[in-house]
Amino acid sequence: MRIALGVTYRGSAYHGWQSQPGGATVQDHLESALSQFAAAPIHTVCAGRTDTGVHGLNQVVHFDTDRVREPFSWLRGTNRYLPADIAVQWCRTVPDDFHARNHARGRRYAYILLESPMRPSIDAGSVGWSFRRLDGEAMCEAAAHLIGEHDFSAFRSSECQAASPVKLMREIGVRRCGAYWRFDFEAVAFLHHMIRNIMGCMVAVGSGNRPSGWMAEVLASRDRDCAAPTFSPDGLYFLGPRYDAHLGLPMRTAGFDVLPGAADDGLPAA
Amino acid sequence: MRIALGVTYRGSAYHGWQSQPGGATVQDHLESALSQFAAAPIHTVCAGRTDTGVHGLNQVVHFDTDRVREPFSWLRGTNRYLPADIAVQWCRTVPDDFHARNHARGRRYAYILLESPMRPSIDAGSVGWSFRRLDGEAMCEAAAHLIGEHDFSAFRSSECQAASPVKLMREIGVRRCGAYWRFDFEAVAFLHHMIRNIMGCMVAVGSGNRPSGWMAEVLASRDRDCAAPTFSPDGLYFLGPRYDAHLGLPMRTAGFDVLPGAADDGLPAA
Repeated sequence: MRIALGVTYRGSAYHGWQSQPGGATVQDHLESALSQFAAAPIHTVCAGRTDTGVHGLNQVVHFDTDRVREPFSWLRGTNRYLPADIAVQWCRTVPDDFHARNHARGRRYAYILLESPMRPSIDAGSVGWSFRRLDGEAMCEAAAHLIGEHDFSAFRSSECQAASPVKLMREIGVRRCGAYWRFDFEAVAFLHHMIRNIMGCMVAVGSGNRPSGWMAEVLASRDRDCAAPTFSPDGLYFLGPRYDAHLGLPMRTAGFDVLPGAADDGLPAA
Repeated sequence: MRIALGVTYRGSAYHGWQSQPGGATVQDHLESALSQFAAAPIHTVCAGRTDTGVHGLNQVVHFDTDRVREPFSWLRGTNRYLPADIAVQWCRTVPDDFHARNHARGRRYAYILLESPMRPSIDAGSVGWSFRRLDGEAMCEAAAHLIGEHDFSAFRSSECQAASPVKLMREIGVRRCGAYWRFDFEAVAFLHHMIRNIMGCMVAVGSGNRPSGWMAEVLASRDRDCAAPTFSPDGLYFLGPRYDAHLGLPMRTAGFDVLPGAADDGLPAA
């Protein structure tokens, strides 16, 4: 039978999601915990791989097993073997043809940015940082240039393995939450480093180094050298994939409520 | 001249505030950083000592120095020598008789508690946890019994060095913020472990293990053995002291805005 899980993790201590020979990745820890609980090797497929230092609030994975357990047993049993900063949040039996990556209709990310003359401290590793004041209106204007289907080559890392640089950006939300800025991104899929490269340009516009129309120029150039440097992974959160509603998979976990602006994040309650 | 600083720190990695021979405390790191920047030994006095694992959002310290520097130089210079999870947020010259501990008219703490069947993960070390559903009304009723001047011996650790167990509790706020509960405490001063011991009782009431009137019984007993076990330090935040307004010391730092319920925390903007 095929099972889907929602996983929440703080990425700071891990070399990203994807399994590596060294073993210090979130996938390695999850598969090790699942395999220990099931007493059989388990391999997972995820909805969206995250980089070193990037956090996950509702990463979705699927795996196949012949072990028959109640969903809550999978949760409790697996969490017992996971480090303190990784936990499975929900568990559902899914149809045998469900595929966590291929069936995702969209993916959502949030970027949390501290605007302060002083660097992060209580929130070190959890937020990006701008010591300059940012102009929300200018950043909204810049973001508007990216909505729709575009060739995002200018925001693509040289290591990107995607088949095409053309992606459909559905939404970019920009809002201030106290000392923090929250940026919400939704696209069908993202290129490698795409949000961190967009964030570099966003902060260049927000701080007044560049006019908002520069974002359109960078996009049109299709040239990575025209964009700003890749921004820090610290403030980047994978909010998770969207699937067809009939699958009934949760779109939210308790962890969403710790982000600034959680009350208005537009996602149904957990 | 006498200088006051506001300090923000994540307490998870430190053996509390107060200096120790081992040196792994927040005060040790702060005094080392100040002394390096000033190129002279600097000793600090704080508004409220915090335990191992407890966080500080606006810890206030004072110290004396003959070094003449702009406030912003103290900030930037000291932060350069501090670990990533500690930062000075503001710096003010104060009258020579200002005393960070003795002049505090009150102290504020917040406790952040995750209510979820699954343990914390993205927020491990930053929040307490209840896997049981909590009853906000019952907890508000229980809290009301503690308001006013009382002998808080039932909530006092055996290591407490306070001269008297009688303290004036001004306010306890209880509210739900999504998957989290936020508890706000204000008193003139607190006993050692007082909030963590109150939180243990609060969760016993909230989860239905005890009726709300039990809090009054525990208080009246003046007996530590009648109260619940000491709750985890992970969700406890020292929000800082209150001083006379004419001193003009900031009551808030950027870090306040990362707590759930920040928009309604009743403190003036940073």
